[in-house]
Amino acid sequence: MAQSTARTYRLGEIVAKLGGELVGDADIDIRRMATVESAAPGDLCFVTHSKYLHQLRGTRASAVILARAQRNATKLPRILCDDPYLYYAQAAALLSDEERPSPGVHPQAVVETGAEVPASATVGPFCHIGRGARLGERVVVGPGCTIGEQAQLGEDGRLGPSVTIYPRCVIGRRVLIHAGAVIGADGFGLAPQAGRWIKIPQTGRVVIGDDVEIGANTTIDRGALDDTVIEDGVKLDNQIQIGHNVRIGAHTAMAACAGVAGSSRIGKHCAIGGAARIMGHIEIADHVTIAATTFVTKSIRNAGTYSAVLPAESEREWARTVAHLRSLERLAKRVRELETRIKPKKRKR
Amino acid sequence: MAQSTARTYRLGEIVAKLGGELVGDADIDIRRMATVESAAPGDLCFVTHSKYLHQLRGTRASAVILARAQRNATKLPRILCDDPYLYYAQAAALLSDEERPSPGVHPQAVVETGAEVPASATVGPFCHIGRGARLGERVVVGPGCTIGEQAQLGEDGRLGPSVTIYPRCVIGRRVLIHAGAVIGADGFGLAPQAGRWIKIPQTGRVVIGDDVEIGANTTIDRGALDDTVIEDGVKLDNQIQIGHNVRIGAHTAMAACAGVAGSSRIGKHCAIGGAARIMGHIEIADHVTIAATTFVTKSIRNAGTYSAVLPAESEREWARTVAHLRSLERLAKRVRELETRIKPKKRKR
Amino acid sequence: MAQSTARTYRLGEIVAKLGGELVGDADIDIRRMATVESAAPGDLCFVTHSKYLHQLRGTRASAVILARAQRNATKLPRILCDDPYLYYAQAAALLSDEERPSPGVHPQAVVETGAEVPASATVGPFCHIGRGARLGERVVVGPGCTIGEQAQLGEDGRLGPSVTIYPRCVIGRRVLIHAGAVIGADGFGLAPQAGRWIKIPQTGRVVIGDDVEIGANTTIDRGALDDTVIEDGVKLDNQIQIGHNVRIGAHTAMAACAGVAGSSRIGKHCAIGGAARIMGHIEIADHVTIAATTFVTKSIRNAGTYSAVLPAESEREWARTVAHLRSLERLAKRVRELETRIKPKKRKR
Repeated sequence: MAQSTARTYRLGEIVAKLGGELVGDADIDIRRMATVESAAPGDLCFVTHSKYLHQLRGTRASAVILARAQRNATKLPRILCDDPYLYYAQAAALLSDEERPSPGVHPQAVVETGAEVPASATVGPFCHIGRGARLGERVVVGPGCTIGEQAQLGEDGRLGPSVTIYPRCVIGRRVLIHAGAVIGADGFGLAPQAGRWIKIPQTGRVVIGDDVEIGANTTIDRGALDDTVIEDGVKLDNQIQIGHNVRIGAHTAMAACAGVAGSSRIGKHCAIGGAARIMGHIEIADHVTIAATTFVTKSIRNAGTYSAVLPAESEREWARTVAHLRSLERLAKRVRELETRIKPKKRKR
Repeated sequence: MAQSTARTYRLGEIVAKLGGELVGDADIDIRRMATVESAAPGDLCFVTHSKYLHQLRGTRASAVILARAQRNATKLPRILCDDPYLYYAQAAALLSDEERPSPGVHPQAVVETGAEVPASATVGPFCHIGRGARLGERVVVGPGCTIGEQAQLGEDGRLGPSVTIYPRCVIGRRVLIHAGAVIGADGFGLAPQAGRWIKIPQTGRVVIGDDVEIGANTTIDRGALDDTVIEDGVKLDNQIQIGHNVRIGAHTAMAACAGVAGSSRIGKHCAIGGAARIMGHIEIADHVTIAATTFVTKSIRNAGTYSAVLPAESEREWARTVAHLRSLERLAKRVRELETRIKPKKRKR
Repeated sequence: MAQSTARTYRLGEIVAKLGGELVGDADIDIRRMATVESAAPGDLCFVTHSKYLHQLRGTRASAVILARAQRNATKLPRILCDDPYLYYAQAAALLSDEERPSPGVHPQAVVETGAEVPASATVGPFCHIGRGARLGERVVVGPGCTIGEQAQLGEDGRLGPSVTIYPRCVIGRRVLIHAGAVIGADGFGLAPQAGRWIKIPQTGRVVIGDDVEIGANTTIDRGALDDTVIEDGVKLDNQIQIGHNVRIGAHTAMAACAGVAGSSRIGKHCAIGGAARIMGHIEIADHVTIAATTFVTKSIRNAGTYSAVLPAESEREWARTVAHLRSLERLAKRVRELETRIKPKKRKR
């Protein structure tokens, strides 16, 4: 929604703002971050592991971010710091500083009576802001978004295009939601009656804390009676599905295509791998890591890493593995039979 | 799109409408459903299993729905019934009765010539209703929806925001479709030609029965030549993918992130777990349950439950399991070798 | 967006355009393609495998496409060719030839200053075309799309409804993108700092080649620093997730719900099955086939088929398999114990 500004920084300015030790010419101009391989003059690059240091030899970058221990790995102007990856994140934020779109409601947006849109907010074309909805200061709503009645979006929030916030959902400050995400659609609540499904009205909300990021086309269902809760600092990648009444603890990150079924509670500071699935009605402790594609079927009480990853093999090898897997019953039986035929050593004596 | 009405019911009124046996004061006012734990005065709660009865002790609810056998489990005013979960569904529907949005086409919607929109229908802002499309009585179309040419949407249908119905698709009565769902995009039909893919035009439709619910960001592809068919009463959760020419039998429910590849037929009254996958060109009988995350690779002829769930373990345990799995070939060989060395008992004689 | 034309072709005209050998009456009128089972008079059907030839007996089709070897399988007028499936694709394209929507920008679309929209392009209602964006000749943009600043969409591109193209993404010629797809949202880049996540600005682009198809609700993230690249002729089905800095080689096809994590490179002419997952930072060679639902955890250097498919079994059988899987450690131990008890044959001598 906004063009990058063309602002350049002198290397010394970057260090003045972000810290670290500068070695070399403080006056060179830095235009943007780049990878070591694709950097051009005016670019700042970074190396996170010593095994990649050799790539520095051919780089055209003007400067590089390095760990303190790598002080002598190059003759380029360099910033030495404790955590080059974190420094990269901070320098990239500084250099890519996006121009904020001008505040104001686009003439082709519809803001219903009783909705609060502060003068500092930006509402794009084709947005619908429902009755009683409240946007915080400096909120930016991309084109084509729908904000339901009485929904709230905290200050400095940013919605990409075509995001839907259903009625009454509450979203904290500095929340970033990418295109196509749907917050607060009905949870999947059905009661069986004589072979048919009776819909259970979903009257809870989605409540999202501060500093949360939600990926493109991710869906978070509203609660059945109580709320679905996403705590502060949670980061959700694209195409994630969060069922009704789930709670996700603060600062947990989930990679793309992960899913959490209804009423489960995930702890704080967890890392959920891509396409991992969490069964409904279970609890996962704080500081748990779930490997990508893994299905968690019961509660996890202790921090640690959990997995059920089956790595791909060549079709032929895999077919043999599956055949053996299928005949484990028979194999176990054959071993039992052998055991009955052979007396244990101790009995032999 | 609509605010909840503030209508309250006396407990006796609820029983008069929904049945069940009332024990206690018929005149107390009930405002809404709530969980036992979060209920406040004015709330009606419910208990579905006797193991949760102990929670009733601390509840602040004004009344509770119980199974007939639990008549004496509390002194609270109570409704006794055969199926508390079903009763909850019905009571919640009664109490949450949504105000219908006012009928009419929003001035910022575009209705093409030849489209039929009855006076009782509601069309939100930024909707596009294509030439020859037909909406039934009392249909509600949320903001930003696209209804393609000659598509049909039966009476009392409701579309959330940003739903897409592609041309010529036919949708039955009382169908509820949540935000971002896409009905009738092209199926994935490709013919290989000299290392390239030639697109096969997808000229079939999607035909959806009555009383179907379709979750947020779910996609249902149109047929290649014949139609993709979703029968009456099917319930699809969020982010489900239905390939071209699939048929899903009446009253089947599928949990989030499930997928069905092209041309498969799923029976009636099936329950497909979250993230389960159904291979293309197979058939699944009626009354089949598929466990979450399970991949069905061939037709299932008999009712029952099917699974291939691998539950997560601690990373260390799992690594050992995988190592053993990979060396099954060797283990089987060692057992064979042992067998050749040990004569079977019967031969010993 | 467009109605099918009612144009019919004589069978001889089809052969004149597409090749093949005509047997029978060249003058019959063909209105559309159909399956053998559902064909009506005026329809052209096709048979790809000899095992389906028996279905021809009851067909009401006016003509049929057959392999040359099947010349005598029917008395119907027929087209003999090398590859009936490919011929079907081509004939269907001929017969379903869609009417192009009239060019022009809908009065309810917003085109920002400096965007280039040629007179031959069609822009639907409720589209937002950002500053400096460039559409090629004859591009068709469906209702409710957002094209970000300085994005480019090559000639003859077609976007379904509610597609989002984020700023600066570059899309080639003849690219077809279905409803709800999101191109160029931020990749999932986070640096940990004292238990919180610091967002890494995603400043790369998505660059898409010519003749690419992208399915409904598919998401392709922009690169962190360098670009995410989708090469010519790639075909992506619905609900696919492509992480930042991925490269997908030319003419690779991926079925629905597949996902590729960040920075992986997939070769040319690969076939990735539905719901397959590719780990981040790995490479897959050209001409690799990945079975549906399979998780690829490390680089694949050689062409071939790879799998980790676990087929569903009845719940009871599966429970036994899992129990055996879990006790493999014990089984292996028991075999070791038997081996210590039985001297190998060679030692016996």
